[in-house]
Amino acid sequence: MLILIKNVYVNGKRQDILIEDNIIKKIGEIKKEEEMEIIDGTKKIAIPGLINTHTHIPMTLFRGVADDLPLMEWLNNHIWKMEAKLNEEIVYWGTLLGCVEMIKTGTTTFNDMYFFLEGIAKAVDESGMRAVLAYGMIDLFDEEKREKEIKNAEKYINYIKDLNNRRITPALGPHAPYTCSKELLLEVNKLAKKYKIPIHIHMNETLDEIKMIKEKFGKEPFLYLNEFGFFDGVDVIAAHCVHLSEEEIKIIKEKNISVSHNPISNLKLASGIAPIPKLLNEGINTTLGTDGCGSNNNLNLFEEIKCSAILHKGTTLDPTIVKAEEAFNFATKNGAKALNVKAGDIREGYLADLVLINVNKPQLRPISNIKSHLVYSFNGCVDDVIIDGKIVMREGDIITLDEEEIYEKAEEMYAILSA
Amino acid sequence: MLILIKNVYVNGKRQDILIEDNIIKKIGEIKKEEEMEIIDGTKKIAIPGLINTHTHIPMTLFRGVADDLPLMEWLNNHIWKMEAKLNEEIVYWGTLLGCVEMIKTGTTTFNDMYFFLEGIAKAVDESGMRAVLAYGMIDLFDEEKREKEIKNAEKYINYIKDLNNRRITPALGPHAPYTCSKELLLEVNKLAKKYKIPIHIHMNETLDEIKMIKEKFGKEPFLYLNEFGFFDGVDVIAAHCVHLSEEEIKIIKEKNISVSHNPISNLKLASGIAPIPKLLNEGINTTLGTDGCGSNNNLNLFEEIKCSAILHKGTTLDPTIVKAEEAFNFATKNGAKALNVKAGDIREGYLADLVLINVNKPQLRPISNIKSHLVYSFNGCVDDVIIDGKIVMREGDIITLDEEEIYEKAEEMYAILSA
Repeated sequence: MLILIKNVYVNGKRQDILIEDNIIKKIGEIKKEEEMEIIDGTKKIAIPGLINTHTHIPMTLFRGVADDLPLMEWLNNHIWKMEAKLNEEIVYWGTLLGCVEMIKTGTTTFNDMYFFLEGIAKAVDESGMRAVLAYGMIDLFDEEKREKEIKNAEKYINYIKDLNNRRITPALGPHAPYTCSKELLLEVNKLAKKYKIPIHIHMNETLDEIKMIKEKFGKEPFLYLNEFGFFDGVDVIAAHCVHLSEEEIKIIKEKNISVSHNPISNLKLASGIAPIPKLLNEGINTTLGTDGCGSNNNLNLFEEIKCSAILHKGTTLDPTIVKAEEAFNFATKNGAKALNVKAGDIREGYLADLVLINVNKPQLRPISNIKSHLVYSFNGCVDDVIIDGKIVMREGDIITLDEEEIYEKAEEMYAILSA
Repeated sequence: MLILIKNVYVNGKRQDILIEDNIIKKIGEIKKEEEMEIIDGTKKIAIPGLINTHTHIPMTLFRGVADDLPLMEWLNNHIWKMEAKLNEEIVYWGTLLGCVEMIKTGTTTFNDMYFFLEGIAKAVDESGMRAVLAYGMIDLFDEEKREKEIKNAEKYINYIKDLNNRRITPALGPHAPYTCSKELLLEVNKLAKKYKIPIHIHMNETLDEIKMIKEKFGKEPFLYLNEFGFFDGVDVIAAHCVHLSEEEIKIIKEKNISVSHNPISNLKLASGIAPIPKLLNEGINTTLGTDGCGSNNNLNLFEEIKCSAILHKGTTLDPTIVKAEEAFNFATKNGAKALNVKAGDIREGYLADLVLINVNKPQLRPISNIKSHLVYSFNGCVDDVIIDGKIVMREGDIITLDEEEIYEKAEEMYAILSA
């Protein structure tokens, strides 16, 4: 199929965009032809679809179940109790709810870590979104658990590969150094090489967990993992990285680790504020994640873009830190690089993952400063979404999914979880 | 006119709301009658209209003109150059653009400080919004300027009183202690008492200005003003209050000063982070402001609610600080108290300033935790707005204003400003 977006504002001027199959074929002046589906871009701007590099998407059902609580109370009395009741069906509907929200706020790709991947993959497939899915592994330093987790992880890698869906790819998801043994992490490194897939892991989210690692292993988490070669020969996306020593920043740089900055989750859970200016100084690939809806409480990546652009100005008292374009790149180009997808930019030969925004919105006026508005004033309500060359949303209506049914089912599933 | 909102979720349950003239007449089970205009609230929740306690609304036209710059470069090379070209017409259209954005994001009342108040008042009148308008006074310690400013301020107070519009009331707006002389500030105190109107002033926004005051007057700004009785016998809304000593916090408490917290502007301009947890400990009336669009860059008060709820958790590393309900009260009840309007709550006998939100939005599901969602996951896109008993927006369409015309005119005015 061919899609022609006519007269849209893209890369600094009004042009046409031709999409063939799942690729941006041409950008420039393009003649209409009969077999093309035409989208009038006259009142719109086109931006690359956003890339969310850290989610637990089925947790969208946990939105607002418990706020303003200390971490352990939040986990013990709320989150873990609900997670114990999860099943494939609940995860499927939770994922669909998350997909609706992400599509409506311009995200086209997400990098997820969770359980019941059959349910997640089914929902992602139906939604039309692109996703990298990892099974979340936790062995709590127990050998029996470890073997089970490694078996599960490999099972899911093959399950996802066998789907043969070019939008859905596998990753490895060891939860964190304080919940996974060295032996598990070494096995993860091997599997990542064997399958040529990335590793998605939580790193240095809270001071408590860093203290735990230092007490147990005598060094900081990145140093501990680096010592036994965990980062060698693999692509790693490290989520959070809130508290980092200078030595750890060096390792992140040397090992080409991508950081998934989750500023809103880190503030809300009172974990702290990641040293993003330092990472940028080192040229470290910084990306953005929302985390799960239990701790954010939404999946609107435009909020993370704005938060990352203003937060570090306020804490360093330097208004030139994290410029608008840098923050926008976190959610586009840098995310694409982290996940190794040819997206995050509107260029010929790139994946046709793009988003149109009607500029008849007060927060986008005056229109002349649109690059600034996308970072500092837009609320994320996009109009059209194309993923992998397929129209997924048109004028605010999602084509691939039945929104009303998803809202109803989300309530049903939540009733089971909170019973 | 009578308006009946049927079956809406309000104050914790499904009820009807009857509005007579500009007052909430009754909440409960109410029979439809012929002369009533009926709004079906079945899929909606009702919240009090939000109250923005610090704006410079015509600056909506300055959105995105200059970001990521040091304050003096931002002011000297951009903002002041544009402000020099302002006139009543430009201010009128800038205000209308701001009103469109505020209405669409659920704000019903704002507290403004700026120039060309004829243009602002005309736009507010047409929009249907409620506003407290102050002429921004700056004498730079010059006697001639001072006399002119005092004359102007009193002229505008009478101009606004003479409009006889119950939605538009005057205030006094001395810009700040570092731009206004003691003599001007004393005159402001007198005028505030004479006309029984509030004072709206910038206080302690940056470390630089505090340093300036300390060097010039030997003490911190609140101490300096308190010494000559500026806070005595008047209602003061102090915007920003980013850097405060313990002694200054005591004065704020003793003099019943309301604080307008502007977290996003303070972060973006790298001014710092206000000590809100300390103010709350002292029971100080804390409200929210967006500031002008030159430094935010929008007027979406829901962003300030979320930012104020998460920011202080992240900086204090205490997740129980500024709970969801507290942050919501900043933008409703507390704002109403600061401006002395009987609004900010949906109660019988209160002003009919209220907002309806359709819950068929992904970020509001599951619906059970709606109080949390309004703070932590909602993006501010409201559906219906009633101000002073009049329907101003219905299902996303503003009734009082012509949006398309305002967007066009905003571009025209911006072209003049940036020429």
